[in-house]
Amino acid sequence: MTTLFHTPLQVISLGLSSFADNLRHAGGDVLHLNWQPPAQGDAAANWQLAQLINDPRIEAANQQALQQYLDAQPELIGILSASQAIGALNGQRRILHAGPPIAWRDMCGPMQGAIAGAIVFEGWAADVSQATEMAARGDVALEPCHHHQAVGPMAGTISPSMPLWVVKNTTHGNLAFCNFNEGLGKVLRFGANGDEVLTRLRWMRDVLAPALSRALQATGAIELKPLIAQALHMGDECHNRNAAASGLLLKRLAPALAGIAQGQEVLTFIAANDHFFLNLSMAACKAMLDAARNVPGSSLVTVMARNGVNFGIQLSGTGDRWFQAPANPVDGLFFPGYGVEDAAADLGDSAITETAGIGGFAMAASPAIVKFVGGSPADAVRHSLAMQTITLAQNPAFTLPALNFAGSGSGIDARRVVDRHILPVINTGIAHKQAGVGQIGAGITTAPLACFIAGLAALADTLEN
Amino acid sequence: MTTLFHTPLQVISLGLSSFADNLRHAGGDVLHLNWQPPAQGDAAANWQLAQLINDPRIEAANQQALQQYLDAQPELIGILSASQAIGALNGQRRILHAGPPIAWRDMCGPMQGAIAGAIVFEGWAADVSQATEMAARGDVALEPCHHHQAVGPMAGTISPSMPLWVVKNTTHGNLAFCNFNEGLGKVLRFGANGDEVLTRLRWMRDVLAPALSRALQATGAIELKPLIAQALHMGDECHNRNAAASGLLLKRLAPALAGIAQGQEVLTFIAANDHFFLNLSMAACKAMLDAARNVPGSSLVTVMARNGVNFGIQLSGTGDRWFQAPANPVDGLFFPGYGVEDAAADLGDSAITETAGIGGFAMAASPAIVKFVGGSPADAVRHSLAMQTITLAQNPAFTLPALNFAGSGSGIDARRVVDRHILPVINTGIAHKQAGVGQIGAGITTAPLACFIAGLAALADTLEN
Repeated sequence: MTTLFHTPLQVISLGLSSFADNLRHAGGDVLHLNWQPPAQGDAAANWQLAQLINDPRIEAANQQALQQYLDAQPELIGILSASQAIGALNGQRRILHAGPPIAWRDMCGPMQGAIAGAIVFEGWAADVSQATEMAARGDVALEPCHHHQAVGPMAGTISPSMPLWVVKNTTHGNLAFCNFNEGLGKVLRFGANGDEVLTRLRWMRDVLAPALSRALQATGAIELKPLIAQALHMGDECHNRNAAASGLLLKRLAPALAGIAQGQEVLTFIAANDHFFLNLSMAACKAMLDAARNVPGSSLVTVMARNGVNFGIQLSGTGDRWFQAPANPVDGLFFPGYGVEDAAADLGDSAITETAGIGGFAMAASPAIVKFVGGSPADAVRHSLAMQTITLAQNPAFTLPALNFAGSGSGIDARRVVDRHILPVINTGIAHKQAGVGQIGAGITTAPLACFIAGLAALADTLEN
Repeated sequence: MTTLFHTPLQVISLGLSSFADNLRHAGGDVLHLNWQPPAQGDAAANWQLAQLINDPRIEAANQQALQQYLDAQPELIGILSASQAIGALNGQRRILHAGPPIAWRDMCGPMQGAIAGAIVFEGWAADVSQATEMAARGDVALEPCHHHQAVGPMAGTISPSMPLWVVKNTTHGNLAFCNFNEGLGKVLRFGANGDEVLTRLRWMRDVLAPALSRALQATGAIELKPLIAQALHMGDECHNRNAAASGLLLKRLAPALAGIAQGQEVLTFIAANDHFFLNLSMAACKAMLDAARNVPGSSLVTVMARNGVNFGIQLSGTGDRWFQAPANPVDGLFFPGYGVEDAAADLGDSAITETAGIGGFAMAASPAIVKFVGGSPADAVRHSLAMQTITLAQNPAFTLPALNFAGSGSGIDARRVVDRHILPVINTGIAHKQAGVGQIGAGITTAPLACFIAGLAALADTLEN
């Protein structure tokens, strides 16, 4: 059944011919596919897609996976170092990165810069130059965050001594992890790795994390689903706009932090970063989606992630397999002095928010975000409406005031993406292609269709008798 | 010219016959008017309104008053006790209340209860019963907040030892004051006056105010216009929904408060009250509108306020004169167990927010408020659009994302209210009619037309040669 959708060549229209090389080292399960939208495709391909769309086994599996996602209750339960949280980082020279698997030599500038910085941060190398050589020699294992129940924005770098948010889905018991948000400007996740960056990372490890850990012990676990729901009523979409959610989190923690010796500097740091909640939003989404994993036959998308070269997705019914394609370009607003020629390709695990039905899917809740990512408030509403057509449900936990409190489209069905040729919308930051420059803009992009076609083909294989 | 708009009786349709008694003791300049909407009115009245609408002196005056309102820059500069801030409260047995002037015997239950509580709080009486007797005897002077550059929500009680926010319009130098928000439940502003209420008021005076004062010295003055603007992009309308603004204020103050001995309990108090910013929103609006006062010939509305019996307005061109009418009913959502028969009449100075172009005028920014005040997000948008038709400008400082960032209608022109028969929309809390019960709901009401007719008649008098 791996020939599903093989049709007489429309390769260039999907850009599929261009990513074979990029993917060669990536270890993904990418099929060499040729695809047209159903309306233009040949009869055989359409018939095969129709079979999947009408397959009662997929319907049943999707309902189960969807219900597990809907039932998930992510709670922030504490903070651990990455080596405590993730066994594979304990005593190992291993660093995690965003997106699907990718070899060092194929990585984009910001990801290489971030990994080199993390190697210095861990004390495995004396400086960035030495760290870069180590990484190039393969002296440090590099693996996706998603292989370890973790996510990270942009470069997504997680090294053993970094502190991680620990989020527990109390319904099903699974944990999810995310690193801490450093703020804007020169930061590791955009590939900066100078002294300023490493000094901040040390402060985050030595001051911020212990203080937040103590504060959390005082406040108790924080339910993240109601907090996200509240932020959606306050103009956030909890991917590129987290001003309200960051404020709600600060409000929850401020009294406890005020009782801690270094609470004042910690509050100052959090108050200065409107994106502080992003990493918790991501961990919450990861926890909810991991609850929907591994339901045989389900076409529900459990992961969308980008490594700066390729975009990868996973489906519930195909477990840990990645389906990849080159990332689509980002249509965005650039900071003064920068343009599209400076931009790295779409990067980061933060598309886990869209996978969970917020971010670009909840843009209708966040009209003011268009000042950051471009477009108009009407576009934001249109995006949310479009996403309702490729998802399995409107999540009653995430309601959108501008749509009269309809739930945000949640639980992407890979079949509907392919059938309707409506691509998942992603709000994203734009990194400079060179390490260390940082963020140069923000905008809107889409998940490439080829991932979903490949995923469906693999899912169909699992269903063959 | 006091006969302007006298037409052959349609009194009952405007309810004007019912408020003569109520107003007898109120000291206002209310005309006994008979009025029909222009489309149904007689030719003489329409002709006279048309004269005002086309009067170039009013146009010019309104542009001046509007510009002064638009230019105002309200900043929170500190905290003072009411006796420090307001000379008339220094060493005097005087208490301020919301709305236009009203005698003790005519006040509604919540206002009497709040004043009695304040008398005990000041130590002028041993208990509420004795305080009530004092007030009834006239042993305590009672005056509107608005007569002293001040505002207060609901009963609006300001007594000498209460702390006040001090807001300065740095453009024109005028000050505005507002008391502190106590939170929800049993609170003085809803007429509750038991031990719990007085104990909290003492804590606010002795702990909250000094801590906030010290924190403000550390942070420096806080510009309130950008803060309100930001909150409007985060789902607030800054009258009945202040969740974002309260969070933004807390974020500004939290680091400084964390460095103060009693900062932790102060942060806990603020974090528990999503309405905490309301009183600052009101002071900011008062400061902006006072900048537009006393422009001869201007029909710009500088005050809308309610004393629980009557609704009063002031116009720029008629200075401190009140034009009053019985308050319109509130169309709202009641808390479980309560209904319209339990409700006090519309109450409080908080309509200063609508007068300044936020609150009900900015409802399009706050779709989620309909869960509190009723209606749908589409209604919220309609209200904001309607208010643009009775205002002199769309304030570029207060933009509404859902209206593609159009400015909120600001600077109510009494002429347009009368001509178009579109009444200013006000989001409001609903108090129980008996002292001490507290808030029983929230909803939407309108300013009564008769106030605007009376105001225009008086304005016309000032223009006669």
